[in-house]
Amino acid sequence: METLYTLSEIADKRFSHGENVPKNVIDGIRRIVSAGGYIGMAQINPIAGNIEYNAKKIAKYIKYSSEIGLDMVVFPELALMGYPIEDTIDRHPVIVEENIRWLKGLAKITTGTTALVGFIEPRKKDAEGKKYFNSVAVLKDGKIQGIVRKSLLPNYSEFNDYRYIEPSPATGVQPAETLGSFDRETVYKCSKLFEKYGISICEDCWNNKEFFNKHLYEKDPIEELAMESPDIFINCSASPTRSKKEQLKHNMLSFLAKKYNTPIVYVNQVGAIDNSSFDGSSRVFGADGELIARAKSFEEQFLIVNPLKKIGKIYPLAKGLEKSLTEQKVFTLEYESDLERTYKTIIQGIRDYFKKCGFKRAVLGLSGGLDSTVCAVLLADAIGRENVFGVSMPSHITSIESKSDAEQLAGNLGINFTEASIRPMIDTTTGCLNDLFKTVETKWKKYWDSNAGIFTDRPKDVSSFTADNIQARSRAMFLWGISNEFASCIPIATSDKSELYMGYATINGDMSGGFAPIADVPKTKLFAFARWLNANREEKNAIPENIILKKPGAELAIDPKTGKPLIAEDALMPYEFLDEIIWRVENNNEGYQNLLETEFVYEKHNPISKEQKTEWIDKFFRRMSTALYKWSILPPSVIVESRSINKYDYRQPITSSRINYKGVKDEYINSILEQDLN
Amino acid sequence: METLYTLSEIADKRFSHGENVPKNVIDGIRRIVSAGGYIGMAQINPIAGNIEYNAKKIAKYIKYSSEIGLDMVVFPELALMGYPIEDTIDRHPVIVEENIRWLKGLAKITTGTTALVGFIEPRKKDAEGKKYFNSVAVLKDGKIQGIVRKSLLPNYSEFNDYRYIEPSPATGVQPAETLGSFDRETVYKCSKLFEKYGISICEDCWNNKEFFNKHLYEKDPIEELAMESPDIFINCSASPTRSKKEQLKHNMLSFLAKKYNTPIVYVNQVGAIDNSSFDGSSRVFGADGELIARAKSFEEQFLIVNPLKKIGKIYPLAKGLEKSLTEQKVFTLEYESDLERTYKTIIQGIRDYFKKCGFKRAVLGLSGGLDSTVCAVLLADAIGRENVFGVSMPSHITSIESKSDAEQLAGNLGINFTEASIRPMIDTTTGCLNDLFKTVETKWKKYWDSNAGIFTDRPKDVSSFTADNIQARSRAMFLWGISNEFASCIPIATSDKSELYMGYATINGDMSGGFAPIADVPKTKLFAFARWLNANREEKNAIPENIILKKPGAELAIDPKTGKPLIAEDALMPYEFLDEIIWRVENNNEGYQNLLETEFVYEKHNPISKEQKTEWIDKFFRRMSTALYKWSILPPSVIVESRSINKYDYRQPITSSRINYKGVKDEYINSILEQDLN
Repeated sequence: METLYTLSEIADKRFSHGENVPKNVIDGIRRIVSAGGYIGMAQINPIAGNIEYNAKKIAKYIKYSSEIGLDMVVFPELALMGYPIEDTIDRHPVIVEENIRWLKGLAKITTGTTALVGFIEPRKKDAEGKKYFNSVAVLKDGKIQGIVRKSLLPNYSEFNDYRYIEPSPATGVQPAETLGSFDRETVYKCSKLFEKYGISICEDCWNNKEFFNKHLYEKDPIEELAMESPDIFINCSASPTRSKKEQLKHNMLSFLAKKYNTPIVYVNQVGAIDNSSFDGSSRVFGADGELIARAKSFEEQFLIVNPLKKIGKIYPLAKGLEKSLTEQKVFTLEYESDLERTYKTIIQGIRDYFKKCGFKRAVLGLSGGLDSTVCAVLLADAIGRENVFGVSMPSHITSIESKSDAEQLAGNLGINFTEASIRPMIDTTTGCLNDLFKTVETKWKKYWDSNAGIFTDRPKDVSSFTADNIQARSRAMFLWGISNEFASCIPIATSDKSELYMGYATINGDMSGGFAPIADVPKTKLFAFARWLNANREEKNAIPENIILKKPGAELAIDPKTGKPLIAEDALMPYEFLDEIIWRVENNNEGYQNLLETEFVYEKHNPISKEQKTEWIDKFFRRMSTALYKWSILPPSVIVESRSINKYDYRQPITSSRINYKGVKDEYINSILEQDLN
Repeated sequence: METLYTLSEIADKRFSHGENVPKNVIDGIRRIVSAGGYIGMAQINPIAGNIEYNAKKIAKYIKYSSEIGLDMVVFPELALMGYPIEDTIDRHPVIVEENIRWLKGLAKITTGTTALVGFIEPRKKDAEGKKYFNSVAVLKDGKIQGIVRKSLLPNYSEFNDYRYIEPSPATGVQPAETLGSFDRETVYKCSKLFEKYGISICEDCWNNKEFFNKHLYEKDPIEELAMESPDIFINCSASPTRSKKEQLKHNMLSFLAKKYNTPIVYVNQVGAIDNSSFDGSSRVFGADGELIARAKSFEEQFLIVNPLKKIGKIYPLAKGLEKSLTEQKVFTLEYESDLERTYKTIIQGIRDYFKKCGFKRAVLGLSGGLDSTVCAVLLADAIGRENVFGVSMPSHITSIESKSDAEQLAGNLGINFTEASIRPMIDTTTGCLNDLFKTVETKWKKYWDSNAGIFTDRPKDVSSFTADNIQARSRAMFLWGISNEFASCIPIATSDKSELYMGYATINGDMSGGFAPIADVPKTKLFAFARWLNANREEKNAIPENIILKKPGAELAIDPKTGKPLIAEDALMPYEFLDEIIWRVENNNEGYQNLLETEFVYEKHNPISKEQKTEWIDKFFRRMSTALYKWSILPPSVIVESRSINKYDYRQPITSSRINYKGVKDEYINSILEQDLN
């Protein structure tokens, strides 16, 4: 066991981190590997569409794998292109041509070590169906030896494979000469060359008819591969992390290995591409379904394994990826088990967005509230404290506590900090707007007066609502000003998931920015997350206790009753109640009636009247409907939970804002339809 | 022919416009119709997800059709739900349950007149594949008699059918008892009941192997239906208008009718849902491929036809829908033929977005430039001049001409108008920001100085770039203030397609708004469009000639060379050249090398050096790459051209911003991969 440990550690040291390893140690590895059956799992982090960058990374691992004499080196799905690449391959076919040329170049540098490299394969122009296959090339001895093509194409949530990809009718390795067109006659001839490996791509292994109750596809590529009795299954994947997904994946892969009495080598992409964060955690299961090896989570790694000899190393998963077998069926405030995964998912999401877009610095408003606080901590950890600038931008409403909390936080984190009052801007803007409003009112009023009955909605009095938004927009004006003025610097949108559901965020204000780190984290989870950050980061208790204890509020308006800034829960509803509605709608697709009729966790310790409950649930659907627009213009964010409102994950027409979520009774339907309709 | 004319006109008067028609005239229609073979084409405009609204509309036409004794009344695809409904049906299954209940209600009110009603059909829970079918119910004599299910599911461009819809393996009418699960055994039993009608849904008729060179699907439902020798083909569609699409559709439908010697009745949805504008133009082709009837474009209509007796009426298409057979293969500045279609597409897009979301009024900045001018005209026509408010918001850079052009335009259009200077806001904001910048610079400079070599990008001097954006954002602050203050009023984002490609629009500034009417119209087309509006609207020459003649510029900065506001073409490149790049990339998927090597229309009358051309093409790809982010946060807009950058039509990862569009030579690839890579 000690030898195996050393083997992987050394390999990783040299291959992933470029550290110098003494020649005699490398020679030692080479001797062990020469016994045969050793496979390198190259868990890489590609940049979408940057083929040269990806190819160089792939070439490095191919060369090292050859140098020490591995049987095979395996890369993730679409390793050469990055996943997802989306519609780019349709509009800019030049990048597909480039990926073929780099693939041929990679083939040339291969030796006796087989390399499995994911790429976009153009089909022949006259072929029926979509333009491309999502393929894996089998490279060996300087040539493309064969091609494996993806059969099952996910098109739910963040996946859009089916847009430009044709499902492969065949499984297993097909002849390379058919590149660009599928040749039914010769499939199995070539397959024999690699028959000891049952190679598939991502979704291809997610359709076992025994394991899953519900099947999205008829075909089961693994079942088909199993009929050829391979020695080892290999699956090249790009599978993003989502809450509750890891345990399912573990169980499924273990089940497949055991069922077919065949080890399975699963190599997953790591890194984030826009809104999707991939956890890596590539792994090997033995023929008995036992976990043999698992690469690190949220890090690039090169891991050497021998699936038949059960040689490998199991790196720990981030807590939260280790969830228990019981899938969460009800809402709970017990977030602890998912917080490390949440942290790593978002950190990677921020880091890769900055790196891949070429940004270095971030600027954000520090209000002393929970949202901006958690964002500041995550940014400091993701891009470095010296690259983060927090600005406290008090108005006439901002409390002394808020300002000092913000400053204390910045000090604890060691980020840059300054205070800049927005009062002059508010005064000037309000003055200008008041004059403008009078003119608008006069002109429109005249029209409305002469059209009484047609327009029942009259302009409101000059309202605090408008004043609230002026504050939020003035702050954004400051942040975007800094972004414009200083190179490679973007403002951060600090909106959280609960408030986005309620549309409780200002357009061109706090929901504006270049990136939105916590847009998929509900408020109650953020509270738990803040405590977790205080307990688990190297610097303990960076977040002042006061920030976690105080009730969230936008500090945009004064409550006339208390004379203090309005508390968000008064304007919305208790976050615990709100977050349970969100959870149930997203995870269980529960509707209005069911929400109304079943008990909430909140109710267990806060008895509420039926009227109160109805009011909150009504408010949820009403506000959610008008928030659809805001979701559509939210900046890129990290998808964290198992379901989200990220626009690349969930789409609903904005013009569907008048859906009746309550439903109606049959008697109502009949009475309506029996009427004389004109 | 006169009778037929009268028949349709009267029907439309009563059915679409609710006008009173004397009883004896109705009786006359009833007598004609009693001869049999008459079909009502109900070209309706549904609201996505608003099932009660849609059901009432459908019920009205079912009742009228029964009243006059039509054989059948046909509605568009997904008439009860609206198309597209997107992921809403997955997250909120309650609306699917509701659409089934309303469907059953509609069945109850049917008599001997068959009604074809599009709806979302849930499949049995244990069925393999997706959750739903996209179906058409055959209603008659108070019952659901059978179901037709869509087989071919488009998933390109704005279409996402495949996300939640299972392709139907069978064609034709299937038994209603199988609702929720497909029963292979009993398919043809029921089909006999309606064998005289070969019913299909939208994309099902778009895969003829003779007509199209390229086939997206193997199956051809029309070919299968033809084997049953129906008397009439019926196709229920929701097919949005795109440039160059109409002629293809005409030819294809005519081809199908002729090939199978069977008339075809094609009923298309009308109206806009978010970014997609559906033109209606429902039609009938005779067995000889001749056009017999065509409903109005961009209007709801009820049209009575008799396909076998060739009875119908052909309403004119909007010019532009009537394009010649020759598909445009090269870029041209001859926009004339597409301008009426463009006008109607956008007008409908604006009108329906406002109506379906519940907005009544719009406010926009009038700069005296082309973009805001065209937007103002379109808004006045779409929602009524009294509901539009134009605000001229001059800064220190704004010329006298710009202000007077804006005022003159507003006067000509009869929209509300006022002037509000942004100078106080600019002065205050600039003052506040300068102080803030100094602090930021000091703090970050200190860090950079101690990290020389790591960070090469130093903060710029306080720059005019930032000042430009302050102006644009101050204006948006005014417009959103008005939106916050006055009910049902949204600001308009006036960005055009050419400038969006170049990222030549300010975040939280001119690209911010509730709706973006001209985001898919390139600048050179806008010039032609302005002239067209002046010539073709009832009020001639509403747009002052000066606005059309002057060179576009954002008037945000002064050109130090001329002392006048900077002209956009100087900052970018000639619009004619830019628009040709856009056209070629979108329509021909041309890459960098091909653009460089082939002649542009612009070059025919403006000889340019190779260096100049290279510079512009380089600039295009560079600026486009960094504009990807802006596309992702653009408000809803109308898709107009055959290809767009609308985020629901085209998706590219923002982190793919470093794609090398130029490609590299094989020698380069080999030299890179042969290097020692570490």
